[in-house]
Amino acid sequence: MLHSAETLSKRIDEAIRQIPFDLKPATLFDPIRYALSVGGKRIRPLLVLMATDLFGKELESSLGPAIGIEIFHNFTLLHDDLMDNSDIRRGKPTVHRKYGTNSAILSGDAMLIESYRYMATAPPAILPELLALFTKTAMEVCQGQQLDMDFEKRSDVTESEYLEMIRLKTAVLLGCALKMGAMIGGATSQDAELLYDFGINIGLAFQLKDDLLDVYGDPRTFGKNIGGDIVCNKKTYLLIKALKTSRGSQHEELQRWIAATQFDREEKIASVKNIYNDLNLRDISENLIEKYYLAALDALSSILISDERKKELVSLAENLMYRVK
Amino acid sequence: MLHSAETLSKRIDEAIRQIPFDLKPATLFDPIRYALSVGGKRIRPLLVLMATDLFGKELESSLGPAIGIEIFHNFTLLHDDLMDNSDIRRGKPTVHRKYGTNSAILSGDAMLIESYRYMATAPPAILPELLALFTKTAMEVCQGQQLDMDFEKRSDVTESEYLEMIRLKTAVLLGCALKMGAMIGGATSQDAELLYDFGINIGLAFQLKDDLLDVYGDPRTFGKNIGGDIVCNKKTYLLIKALKTSRGSQHEELQRWIAATQFDREEKIASVKNIYNDLNLRDISENLIEKYYLAALDALSSILISDERKKELVSLAENLMYRVK
Repeated sequence: MLHSAETLSKRIDEAIRQIPFDLKPATLFDPIRYALSVGGKRIRPLLVLMATDLFGKELESSLGPAIGIEIFHNFTLLHDDLMDNSDIRRGKPTVHRKYGTNSAILSGDAMLIESYRYMATAPPAILPELLALFTKTAMEVCQGQQLDMDFEKRSDVTESEYLEMIRLKTAVLLGCALKMGAMIGGATSQDAELLYDFGINIGLAFQLKDDLLDVYGDPRTFGKNIGGDIVCNKKTYLLIKALKTSRGSQHEELQRWIAATQFDREEKIASVKNIYNDLNLRDISENLIEKYYLAALDALSSILISDERKKELVSLAENLMYRVK
Repeated sequence: MLHSAETLSKRIDEAIRQIPFDLKPATLFDPIRYALSVGGKRIRPLLVLMATDLFGKELESSLGPAIGIEIFHNFTLLHDDLMDNSDIRRGKPTVHRKYGTNSAILSGDAMLIESYRYMATAPPAILPELLALFTKTAMEVCQGQQLDMDFEKRSDVTESEYLEMIRLKTAVLLGCALKMGAMIGGATSQDAELLYDFGINIGLAFQLKDDLLDVYGDPRTFGKNIGGDIVCNKKTYLLIKALKTSRGSQHEELQRWIAATQFDREEKIASVKNIYNDLNLRDISENLIEKYYLAALDALSSILISDERKKELVSLAENLMYRVK
């Protein structure tokens, strides 16, 4: 690649700062500015630019779609927080807590529209193809969120159903970002597809790592409270796997903790974590993460470009894999 | 025009029936199918096709964008009903009443995405321009809805603020439908703009007519209960005008009715209607509607196409103007 990830990140931050959200009425645009200002790692727009850069193309044409994908991602967080009734996002009040439910609905809608405005700035020659990819992906993200909500009401979710859900909810947007960048960069459709696969596998590893950090993360470096998923019985990979593989009194104990309405928070976390330990779920989970990580690197290595130019993508993938928060 | 409105309506109904909403999960797509099946007059897609037809162009290329605009319109109804907490739409339970709040949020989002999928089927040569128009319009509709919600909390809304709100919330989408159809039909940008103006003026007349029918409609033909806007103090043209022009004891009486929390429904309707009558608001309102109607016809007549070919558009405008429900 011609540019470091750091250089690209700076261009993204600058472009986000320049989004003209001082439009009227302020009641519509203030929540949008707030949602985008809360930050985050800006990984998706970075992937768009890195993919274009990988093929040696000027970054000008990618910047609009990159910003579009970041606005879209923040729209999904905004509406997801509302649907999940979450109070806090990245240490700050969520949009519906700060501005109310109706503002969260409508400002989210406006963000989705805004994401298409930026998407439509892509080069006209590839616009139809690029929009088709974005729309397909956006719909898949909705499907993933719906499955996630449906799973809350079920106790028989299988491992493969779970993996399909996180593929839709998380992985496809990473794949889309990379493929989009590749398309703008003039990649062959085969190379664009390989980058998509790279993104899907990184995305799956990323989400599984998220599930793992909730239980095994270091409280000093992990951003959220350890054990949050355990407390609210979130159907993570670990819980689904534990429900499937536990037997006898251990299975009963797990079921009791899930059914409990009154409990000591720390006691529940410690007990469920013990069951996970007994079932060796940390290793099983890390092995699966490793499997997806290797599949990602495999896809990347099949792209006929020198390893030297792929370095930044590999190190981004490494950072996501070995992150502690 | 080459086709009657009736023929065009049939093509639209058929195209809507063919939308593939049997995708998974059903929890996401059932509410969408329901929202679209509840019906309505399908005026917006009809305007797209009529505009293309006006310029003698094949309708194939317009059908996708026409369906896109109808899906978008139904998305706005779905989310508006949720924000307004409405229980009934066209005589049936609203989506959030039938499927729950989260389904209404997420299925609405999916409809907005779906509307872009159909929009993107427009001829590639005009796709960037067409998307820019659609995105600008979609954002304006959000701005209009936000203003409408903001107005609920204010008692000093002016007539011009109200007219700007209904321009954004209702009129621009009619203008957009017509302009889009004209663009696909190969109209000059001047003719496309004239059709847009025709739509804006029809839209303003349409909404003012809606406000009027709520009070002066015939209960036997009007779809909703007469006086619904009066009961809930909706800031319609009539109420805003009454608040502005009433004086002395009449003004005080109006304020008392607005502030009242316990009242007889029919008594409130009759009393407020009396004030409207005394202030001559029916005539004032009808004159304003007539003004917009004439401005619409004026824009249409400036398009250099034979009157014969404009007949269907004129009669649609007439129907919307002289409708009783």
